[in-house]
Amino acid sequence: MGRTIVFALLASSATAFTAPSRPFRHLHASSTTLPATSSPEAATKNSEDVSLGWNSHVPIDAAPDTLVRGTDLGTPGNEGMRRKFEAMCREAQNDICKAIEELDGAGKFQEDVWERPNGGGGISRVLSKGEVFEKAGCSLSVVYGTMPPEAVASATDRGADRAKGMKPGERVPFFACGLSSVMHPRNPFAPTMHFNYRYFETDGGAWWFGGGTDITPSYLNEEDMKHFHGTYKEVCDKHDPEYYAKFKKWADDYFYIKHRGETRGLGGIFFDDQCNKDPEEHFAFSKEALGSVIKAYTPIVAKHKDDEFTQEQKEWQLMRRGRYVEFNLVYDRGTVFGLKTGGRIESILMSLPETARWEYNHSPAEGSPEAEILDAFKNPREWV
Amino acid sequence: MGRTIVFALLASSATAFTAPSRPFRHLHASSTTLPATSSPEAATKNSEDVSLGWNSHVPIDAAPDTLVRGTDLGTPGNEGMRRKFEAMCREAQNDICKAIEELDGAGKFQEDVWERPNGGGGISRVLSKGEVFEKAGCSLSVVYGTMPPEAVASATDRGADRAKGMKPGERVPFFACGLSSVMHPRNPFAPTMHFNYRYFETDGGAWWFGGGTDITPSYLNEEDMKHFHGTYKEVCDKHDPEYYAKFKKWADDYFYIKHRGETRGLGGIFFDDQCNKDPEEHFAFSKEALGSVIKAYTPIVAKHKDDEFTQEQKEWQLMRRGRYVEFNLVYDRGTVFGLKTGGRIESILMSLPETARWEYNHSPAEGSPEAEILDAFKNPREWV
Repeated sequence: MGRTIVFALLASSATAFTAPSRPFRHLHASSTTLPATSSPEAATKNSEDVSLGWNSHVPIDAAPDTLVRGTDLGTPGNEGMRRKFEAMCREAQNDICKAIEELDGAGKFQEDVWERPNGGGGISRVLSKGEVFEKAGCSLSVVYGTMPPEAVASATDRGADRAKGMKPGERVPFFACGLSSVMHPRNPFAPTMHFNYRYFETDGGAWWFGGGTDITPSYLNEEDMKHFHGTYKEVCDKHDPEYYAKFKKWADDYFYIKHRGETRGLGGIFFDDQCNKDPEEHFAFSKEALGSVIKAYTPIVAKHKDDEFTQEQKEWQLMRRGRYVEFNLVYDRGTVFGLKTGGRIESILMSLPETARWEYNHSPAEGSPEAEILDAFKNPREWV
Repeated sequence: MGRTIVFALLASSATAFTAPSRPFRHLHASSTTLPATSSPEAATKNSEDVSLGWNSHVPIDAAPDTLVRGTDLGTPGNEGMRRKFEAMCREAQNDICKAIEELDGAGKFQEDVWERPNGGGGISRVLSKGEVFEKAGCSLSVVYGTMPPEAVASATDRGADRAKGMKPGERVPFFACGLSSVMHPRNPFAPTMHFNYRYFETDGGAWWFGGGTDITPSYLNEEDMKHFHGTYKEVCDKHDPEYYAKFKKWADDYFYIKHRGETRGLGGIFFDDQCNKDPEEHFAFSKEALGSVIKAYTPIVAKHKDDEFTQEQKEWQLMRRGRYVEFNLVYDRGTVFGLKTGGRIESILMSLPETARWEYNHSPAEGSPEAEILDAFKNPREWV
């Protein structure tokens, strides 16, 4: 069970931080007492033994000021980053949910708040059956877990020494905090958007930042893509002239549906294991990238939410949602490991669209708008 | 590439034999010449080197009398079973497609026939957008491939010595033939049905039979389940008094969606690695089980195809189809390995429903018909 959350957090997609809201009714009686939270130090020692699965998430009525453990100052030399990152995520969650509700005009986010017996917890927010959005989720998660050796080793190539201060092969206790989201609008001309920003620290003293925002339209609108990618290029350029090119390619590579030979959408930025600068610099970049979600995305939805469309266009959108399902269930690291190791299912699968479609051997007509965007999925382009 | 077909065939679900029909247009020019078919012996020696992926399937105009190689007599002591099994599958394919078209009244199966350069091939049939069926597929496949050591070892527990006559750790060249199918009706009260019957031989002289038929309703109708399971119990009982109990449990275990704690549907029969009797006895059982698909399934669809239903009932069916997608993309051995190793995608994913739905945290009302069948998915029952 302990692996669930670990893997969910290592993942790069929306599911990474979509976290449990309510325990399964059929499987255990829920409880509102949180023994370990009142003695977090005791829990630290035994974090490997503590279940982090679906049955260890305890619903609470309202979010406390912080989900970071009371005595937790974090990594020496980087004190306070845990709470600072959490506070930044919570502010972004409020701002983004407010902007999405305003844009929707009808739907409201339902909030589920929960804590884990060994510390950490989350604030899940889901808007279902809105006017503009068929499904939109935006969830905060704070996790204390342990990382298996494979996950530790795999990151070394990317510059992060996740095993710092630990014995070889040892599971690495870590802290993580992040905010993740998927928004699925109804109109086939309004794209789906996903983001995930996260901060990690290990008990060995390693720390790193990861995240990204990416867009998944069903129809190609170059102006929209220039706006979305342009917004993120501007954010990147302010922090590092190499970021945009590097993180744009990283997104194209990660969101690739190998069996289709297509990307899931039209990319954006994606990064992980960032630790080569002063932590404040990485924090500032994450903050600005997260703070740019609204301006990068909502104008595109506002522009297209009332576009006229045909039944065929709706069906094409649903087929592209089928691809979204294929990516998330087959490739997305957080989803696959979360499902197989007992994660809180409704939270993990919050990223799936309300509806998806599969037609046998569908192939868009040559020269059609559907064929046009399919070409962009098969051959990732530069938009700015 | 060579692994694709191997894994697809080892799988137990519909995808196992849903096989390539047309090469991808964007990726290679199609060809109607079949060099290796005219010299199959040469191909045998190099079967590991020959790609069996999406780009090695050559469409042909009509099915030849047999897709088994011309000089292929099969395993000593079991000569002729390859062609005999193929002939049986082709007859069943004709009968089943005819019965489904009659029941549908409007939709027709589209046929795609193809051969592989190193021998083998297939006949894929798909009915899309019918009156009664939103999607129905029934496909024959004949494969010459090699089985990796893991797949060989995993079968030993089930009584089949797949490694017979081979060196330890060696890849095992094999022949396989099978027919597989998934039928998704439109009406929420008409269940989905899947079957797959297959026969394997290795170059080391091992052979075995596998297969099964299972049903996936969205609403529980005990009379229908008694009919479906009763039909298969009768078939089983005629061949072995232990078969039904054993194969019924095998289906419940295999079609289990672990992350939901639910079965995909209400089961049926499932078996693999059957080789403990005279091959003719196993053949006779497979033949009768395959020959009973029509009488086990079509009366249930005929009875419910015009049932009245509400939008809510349709949505519940689509949510159960979402579970079908989850099972096939996350757990089904053939689908997962086929997708990851370059299988012919449209054939592998032919088993997916036309539409599927995911609602956040949906839970049927207590005492509702939806809650009633969910209980049967969570706690598999005996129907006869």
